Amino acid sequence: MKPAILLQTDFSNTWSAVAAMKGVIKMTDPELEIYDLCHDIKCFDPWEASLSLSAAEPYWPGGTVIVSVVDPGVGTSRRASVARLNDGTYVVTPDNGTLTHLKHSVGIAAVREIDERRNRFRAKEDVSVFHGRDLFGYCAALLASGKISFEQVGRAYPVSQVIECPEYSLLPEIHGDRVDTWIMTGLKHFGGIQFYITNEEWKRLGYTEGDNVSIRITHEGTAVFDGIVPFAKSFGFVPKGDPVLYCGSSLYLSLDCNQDSLMDKYGIGTGRDWKVSLAKA
Amino acid sequence: MKPAILLQTDFSNTWSAVAAMKGVIKMTDPELEIYDLCHDIKCFDPWEASLSLSAAEPYWPGGTVIVSVVDPGVGTSRRASVARLNDGTYVVTPDNGTLTHLKHSVGIAAVREIDERRNRFRAKEDVSVFHGRDLFGYCAALLASGKISFEQVGRAYPVSQVIECPEYSLLPEIHGDRVDTWIMTGLKHFGGIQFYITNEEWKRLGYTEGDNVSIRITHEGTAVFDGIVPFAKSFGFVPKGDPVLYCGSSLYLSLDCNQDSLMDKYGIGTGRDWKVSLAKA
Amino acid sequence: MKPAILLQTDFSNTWSAVAAMKGVIKMTDPELEIYDLCHDIKCFDPWEASLSLSAAEPYWPGGTVIVSVVDPGVGTSRRASVARLNDGTYVVTPDNGTLTHLKHSVGIAAVREIDERRNRFRAKEDVSVFHGRDLFGYCAALLASGKISFEQVGRAYPVSQVIECPEYSLLPEIHGDRVDTWIMTGLKHFGGIQFYITNEEWKRLGYTEGDNVSIRITHEGTAVFDGIVPFAKSFGFVPKGDPVLYCGSSLYLSLDCNQDSLMDKYGIGTGRDWKVSLAKA
Repeated sequence: MKPAILLQTDFSNTWSAVAAMKGVIKMTDPELEIYDLCHDIKCFDPWEASLSLSAAEPYWPGGTVIVSVVDPGVGTSRRASVARLNDGTYVVTPDNGTLTHLKHSVGIAAVREIDERRNRFRAKEDVSVFHGRDLFGYCAALLASGKISFEQVGRAYPVSQVIECPEYSLLPEIHGDRVDTWIMTGLKHFGGIQFYITNEEWKRLGYTEGDNVSIRITHEGTAVFDGIVPFAKSFGFVPKGDPVLYCGSSLYLSLDCNQDSLMDKYGIGTGRDWKVSLAKA
Repeated sequence: MKPAILLQTDFSNTWSAVAAMKGVIKMTDPELEIYDLCHDIKCFDPWEASLSLSAAEPYWPGGTVIVSVVDPGVGTSRRASVARLNDGTYVVTPDNGTLTHLKHSVGIAAVREIDERRNRFRAKEDVSVFHGRDLFGYCAALLASGKISFEQVGRAYPVSQVIECPEYSLLPEIHGDRVDTWIMTGLKHFGGIQFYITNEEWKRLGYTEGDNVSIRITHEGTAVFDGIVPFAKSFGFVPKGDPVLYCGSSLYLSLDCNQDSLMDKYGIGTGRDWKVSLAKA
Repeated sequence: MKPAILLQTDFSNTWSAVAAMKGVIKMTDPELEIYDLCHDIKCFDPWEASLSLSAAEPYWPGGTVIVSVVDPGVGTSRRASVARLNDGTYVVTPDNGTLTHLKHSVGIAAVREIDERRNRFRAKEDVSVFHGRDLFGYCAALLASGKISFEQVGRAYPVSQVIECPEYSLLPEIHGDRVDTWIMTGLKHFGGIQFYITNEEWKRLGYTEGDNVSIRITHEGTAVFDGIVPFAKSFGFVPKGDPVLYCGSSLYLSLDCNQDSLMDKYGIGTGRDWKVSLAKA
């Protein structure tokens, strides 16, 4: 059975772009099954693309061909690449930061630059702004269908050259049980936020469910949130509307309100300007 | 051929959660086909989840494995269950009200509590907030693939114990051709509303297409809508912008404007506080 | 292998309607694969439906069965039709303008009106407002599964009678290198707009990448945008935030800002009231 293709973009599903990508894949091989990872990645933001990939990739079978297109530099000289991860999964993507987290978690076994002369779909009319369809989607279909091998993608280049987002190196500072870090991302839909410290790192500091944690969030020097919050197994362990700290499914420490939006309630945003300090209360 | 899996959640499609659920299903059995019912169920609202299931379920083949995860109590003690409906379809869901309408319409043949020791996916890192992926999605995949039988899901419990939403018992009051009921739900996208009276009950009162109906909607004692509206076969039988009463595809009596949003135009919301009286004009 | 079914509607994915369509297709033939073109077509707008079809159709294999349901006249006397395009693809749709662009680009080989007596799904309870499910989706499934031939869809009628949107005839006026046209559509998600002149027509006027173009957009007599913009291969060739003119993936000449929303930045809308003049600067 051929591997599935899994698509991620910042195109949204509100127009025909994703469907055009899928059509080119189906033209290449009608047997390929195509699933969506997410098409609402924050526009032009490789950091968010990288985080989303790292949250979903471990739950798909090894050998899956993932396409991730968040590509503000489309048509310019950034590399168009295929990475083979250590678990056998492929990621087809502009090499602009998308691979940051997977490079450090699963690990990249090898990476190749797509040879556009051989592995680019030639639409009747040539446009330069839709590499998602003509280059990444098409090359993924060739690979998943077995029409080309990984070696035929194009020339290999050193894994060390794979671009990493600068945010990745803004590591949490740890002093005993105190953590100084920042708000790595947030989820507008439910309104929770994720701190840049993994669940695993957090638990290694000695925190256990039931602990009370002092949390202070500041933005440009102003405190936006300052309180004692229980570290719990899940939302339902605090009263409705109350904040709760928990091990998030993204594998990062998360803060949310039970059945309410923390981001809306406290006016909290995301990014490196949103600092957070956590300590035992 | 194996049954399809059909997914419903309140997660939205704006992040990777639904894709992680699909990945675990594909890891369990790559042959399984997965479709989406809806991922924009009103957050934390089992009533909306139950209505949505009851609107779509009759149109899928018997034997389909439906997963519905609207689960404000994730990680707490609510039951995680699989119901076998009288038409052979399975619903894998927290037993928190989701099954209300199907229990009364299609009927539940048997229900079992998922044995978490055997039928839970063990991710490398354990989190407690993602039963959609680790419990409901995974158990659905085991069942659809034939890796476990319905009996192997876990211990059976009486169908009478299946939780019902309290709203269900707020039945319409009928006096001759007059109906007093409430706005059961609405559809933000098009702006129409559904009353808590089925198309079938409505027609049994003697209403036929072409009748004029007096409709009065009140909210906290104030009339929000008061007018005579035609009961018609479809929108296009009234002028553009005008209100029209019709038999909705949800199987409930519906009010909308032709090519306009009734909810926006008249400031109408939904829920038990929105009362409505209907009578022959 | 059976052809895929590709669905387009203005229903949105925020409720169960699209899933009910898919269920009826799966009940008709569980082997059929179903993909989504787009479910966020501007409500009740056949022009947008037609543009979207024409942008995606060329990238799907010939023989695909496309369903497009943007149907303000549902339940009234407009024709329910199946068009066979010159490349073998079928489009199942209310004949209300949806086929405008494909009629002129790919071309329609033949068109038939769906015989509702034979090719309509009979739900247990009859509603008149959901032809997407009961008529278009069901007929598409019969056709894709081979249960009916194209001839068995219903009576043929002349291709010349296929309804065209009136906007189609508002052709660009060309005087040398100057073009007077209008804003045919826009993309809220990224914020770019498309002019009613194809990439091909534009290039035939002698424009090449690197040219500077004078662009003036007016709405009800007031200039909303007036500037010199580079015609470039892609967004990344201008500074972040700057406007750029390029050959769009929709096959029409497009204007956007690099990593910003032109529509938001300049307050630009779409439609025949938004006039544009382009000329060499």
